[in-house]
Amino acid sequence: MTTPSQPLTIGVFDSGFGGLTVLRALLPLIPAARYIYLGDTARLPYGSKSRETIARYAVSSARFLHQQGADLLVIACNTATALALDDIRAALPIPVIGVIQPGAQAAHTAATLSRNPQPDSSILVLATAATVQSHAYTQALTALGLNTTEKACPLLVPLVEEGWLPNPVPDTTHEPRKSAVTAEVLRIYLTEALAAAPHATTLLLGCTHYPLLKPLIESTLQSLHHPMTIIDSAEATAQTVAQTVAQATPQPTSITPICTFYATDSVEKFQQLGSHFLGQPLTQVHLIDLGG
Amino acid sequence: MTTPSQPLTIGVFDSGFGGLTVLRALLPLIPAARYIYLGDTARLPYGSKSRETIARYAVSSARFLHQQGADLLVIACNTATALALDDIRAALPIPVIGVIQPGAQAAHTAATLSRNPQPDSSILVLATAATVQSHAYTQALTALGLNTTEKACPLLVPLVEEGWLPNPVPDTTHEPRKSAVTAEVLRIYLTEALAAAPHATTLLLGCTHYPLLKPLIESTLQSLHHPMTIIDSAEATAQTVAQTVAQATPQPTSITPICTFYATDSVEKFQQLGSHFLGQPLTQVHLIDLGG
Repeated sequence: MTTPSQPLTIGVFDSGFGGLTVLRALLPLIPAARYIYLGDTARLPYGSKSRETIARYAVSSARFLHQQGADLLVIACNTATALALDDIRAALPIPVIGVIQPGAQAAHTAATLSRNPQPDSSILVLATAATVQSHAYTQALTALGLNTTEKACPLLVPLVEEGWLPNPVPDTTHEPRKSAVTAEVLRIYLTEALAAAPHATTLLLGCTHYPLLKPLIESTLQSLHHPMTIIDSAEATAQTVAQTVAQATPQPTSITPICTFYATDSVEKFQQLGSHFLGQPLTQVHLIDLGG
Repeated sequence: MTTPSQPLTIGVFDSGFGGLTVLRALLPLIPAARYIYLGDTARLPYGSKSRETIARYAVSSARFLHQQGADLLVIACNTATALALDDIRAALPIPVIGVIQPGAQAAHTAATLSRNPQPDSSILVLATAATVQSHAYTQALTALGLNTTEKACPLLVPLVEEGWLPNPVPDTTHEPRKSAVTAEVLRIYLTEALAAAPHATTLLLGCTHYPLLKPLIESTLQSLHHPMTIIDSAEATAQTVAQTVAQATPQPTSITPICTFYATDSVEKFQQLGSHFLGQPLTQVHLIDLGG
């Protein structure tokens, strides 16, 4: 790590835009850092690809961020964490934090603090097909003594990326028929998931796109008469990174964060869609070629 | 081309599974050929990527099929045809046929044969975001003297790939709530498109995934009281390939086609999802690595 006089450089990696929800949570927690974000947009989505392909893409992306000066790397992508965290750690000499362990820990805390823990209560994880197939969340949660049910929700990422949401980006209007489609898709997925896990008390959002769906998930659960505590792994990961950084090097707190963004495909699309996820305008996006 | 004693080898390329609808249409038309199909599944979807990235991926895929012995290449992918046909033709010494020109020609024939051609009638093209942004269909149709409106429908490919259809694959059951979601998404897209093109008489399916949606598109148009002639560019392309082959080398007709399949990602997924598009079981899928 750098000395306290130099800002710490935190590399944040995702296959696309979703990891910007982790960066969004990091900015207020570690405002004095320098951030380098890489979205491997030319090769997204990772969620539907095989382990070998995902590991190859993720390691080359992580190496790029290390070459750009990252002191610490956040794998802000559930699929890459589930399938490639060990490969990335083996390839790089810097600390690497994924999203799954922090998400599982936060779900454990929520389940423990629950006022009415049922003896057969369990955690429901919503994620992409590849994350679910890896069973990485089940392994992490089982190690913490929690029953887990995982549900693959492949249509949610495209719906979020198309902005079919009740809480659209600034400059767009809410189109009720479009957000109603997303609500119905969520209702279908949650109905199927709760049939398999009727006693689930905690819902873990196992994809960094899903925080944008949180209000809609809450209202859908309400309409299904099944309220749950919702855990956002993006927020949980940012907390873990902040604790790691605070332990390693006390950081000044009065400096504005510096963010640099890299994408492997269209810079314009990254700026437009990314601001949606980051919650603020995105500037300084650089195009890079990682081959392939 | 090969001599009549040797079967002609036709290479068929798509970013994923959709091109199998073109192969499906080719098999009965040219049964004596040998077919090599490549789905660049590790790098799909092409539809949301930039021109430079798509051209790089498509050229490397086309080169692979040529190396495997293709005498003729079919670019069974609207996005790759729209953005990379010239690059592929420049890179290969064999005939290359894309899907856009045959689709446009078939739409022209349909519009000409229409019994009640209105003076301001026009063609409506449904396609991926990248195909629409390329305006390749507008250019091809305008050259034929036809008014054209293009509509990007980014959610249709994921919905087809998830099988949320009223006509599911064998071994799966029809889930009415899921196909109702797809019907509502189609209704939203078609309502927006027809608001922009109220006099459209011909609908051109500008993505090789869309033939699987044809019955649902027909019923949606009926419910919108706007019947149209639907042109499937997969079928039109197969007809063009058959004419080209018949002109070049008379083929024996009594032989069963031989098909070999290559994919750049999961062979299991390709077999499972691909049989949906091909309309018959898929065997002999080989995994290849094109880098990236």
